Amino acid sequence: MSVHTTLDLATGGDPFGDAVREVWEAGGRPGVSYEIIERDDGLITANDVHRYFAPHPEWAPLEQRLCERAGQRVLDVGCGPGRHAVHLLAQGHRVLGVESSPGAADVARLRGVETLTTTVETLTPDIGSFDTVLLGGQNIGLLGNREKAGDILRRLAAVTAPGGSLLGVSVDPHTLTSAWNRAYLERNLAAERLPGQQRLRIRDGITSTPWFDYLYASATELAALTEDTPWQVHELVRHEKQYLAHLRRS
Amino acid sequence: MSVHTTLDLATGGDPFGDAVREVWEAGGRPGVSYEIIERDDGLITANDVHRYFAPHPEWAPLEQRLCERAGQRVLDVGCGPGRHAVHLLAQGHRVLGVESSPGAADVARLRGVETLTTTVETLTPDIGSFDTVLLGGQNIGLLGNREKAGDILRRLAAVTAPGGSLLGVSVDPHTLTSAWNRAYLERNLAAERLPGQQRLRIRDGITSTPWFDYLYASATELAALTEDTPWQVHELVRHEKQYLAHLRRS
Repeated sequence: MSVHTTLDLATGGDPFGDAVREVWEAGGRPGVSYEIIERDDGLITANDVHRYFAPHPEWAPLEQRLCERAGQRVLDVGCGPGRHAVHLLAQGHRVLGVESSPGAADVARLRGVETLTTTVETLTPDIGSFDTVLLGGQNIGLLGNREKAGDILRRLAAVTAPGGSLLGVSVDPHTLTSAWNRAYLERNLAAERLPGQQRLRIRDGITSTPWFDYLYASATELAALTEDTPWQVHELVRHEKQYLAHLRRS
Repeated sequence: MSVHTTLDLATGGDPFGDAVREVWEAGGRPGVSYEIIERDDGLITANDVHRYFAPHPEWAPLEQRLCERAGQRVLDVGCGPGRHAVHLLAQGHRVLGVESSPGAADVARLRGVETLTTTVETLTPDIGSFDTVLLGGQNIGLLGNREKAGDILRRLAAVTAPGGSLLGVSVDPHTLTSAWNRAYLERNLAAERLPGQQRLRIRDGITSTPWFDYLYASATELAALTEDTPWQVHELVRHEKQYLAHLRRS
């Protein structure tokens, strides 16, 4: 093993939105474009963006269960091109999407999903009141890190009716056993970060997002993050390395 | 746009071989693993590794034509898991593969292709004499750069019978018109490199190859590289941004 220097990258553009739009324009088929996610230790993964268009029967089991628990008025946070939202609309729910990628938000709108182009970190109560906040597709990750999570949970509570629910899926970081994931977790602990905090960026062609924090939290860690917020853990459903979290708003 | 610092990457392992092996073990189906190729200006692309297992009817037109021109004894340079070689064997040719990725070479052998795990830069005449040297899948790129190309062409001539052929596909770099590709070409020219020289690395999971040079040469540039070698351009077939080059050994 030898160590290499790497490039500096200019950030800008809409790498995720560009990839989503390409797949949409190709009719949602596989093999068109890929979401490339890079972690700051060099771990890199690619996924076919087609998965964000997959119909309900092809979803992972926890994603299906998530939607079964949704109330009438749903805020779909990080909705992408509307995988969950299109399904929920067809089931008679009312849905508002929130998506930070302009390209992905545009595609969600083309598919009939009313969508705000904004981030969860800047949501304000004027968007309305919802029975369910949905953080599908591992979007509990959008809580980011220990410092941001409380603020985001309170912002989400402010748009949820009393007794309403927050439904999300996360990966339990303690189930990731490869040498590099264990080393990453250890470095987080040494720096007093949550063990599952991931520093990521999304790349496509010549564009890259800035680095951002994306959180894998265990159920226990998630419960701790709800302290000083109106949320309480109501139900947990585990499946392999992931779990469904069902929080209730007081 | 803001500029970001990035990580240093340890190099090692066999990122391409790991990705190929995963697809092979999954029966060659799509959606299993991706080849992530990064250029030193930050351009990043992903391809489904399934394409290296695609059967002959699914190949690009120039790749099909390439194999139609092959002689009896074929040296398949950069054979990967044997896309061309398996087809040529079925057509009655004799084939020796050359592949630098140990994992990809292993899969080629499992598919019945006799394969040397080595690089084209270190080929020696003791491997035998061939009627055709095949550089399929844009593998004219393995000529690397102006400095290396002559040596590699002479090494390939030394294992080709007089009157034999070199068959390859390349991308004409002058057909790449995006702003970043034009800027990359300009930087190459300013540094007195061939315009289509690409500095690349392949990444998978936590592993990366070192940076290596991969050459896109126009037909004119390729002809110039054959000076002081036993090769001469015999036939060119253009198709969109690519062309098939058919060289003859004197």
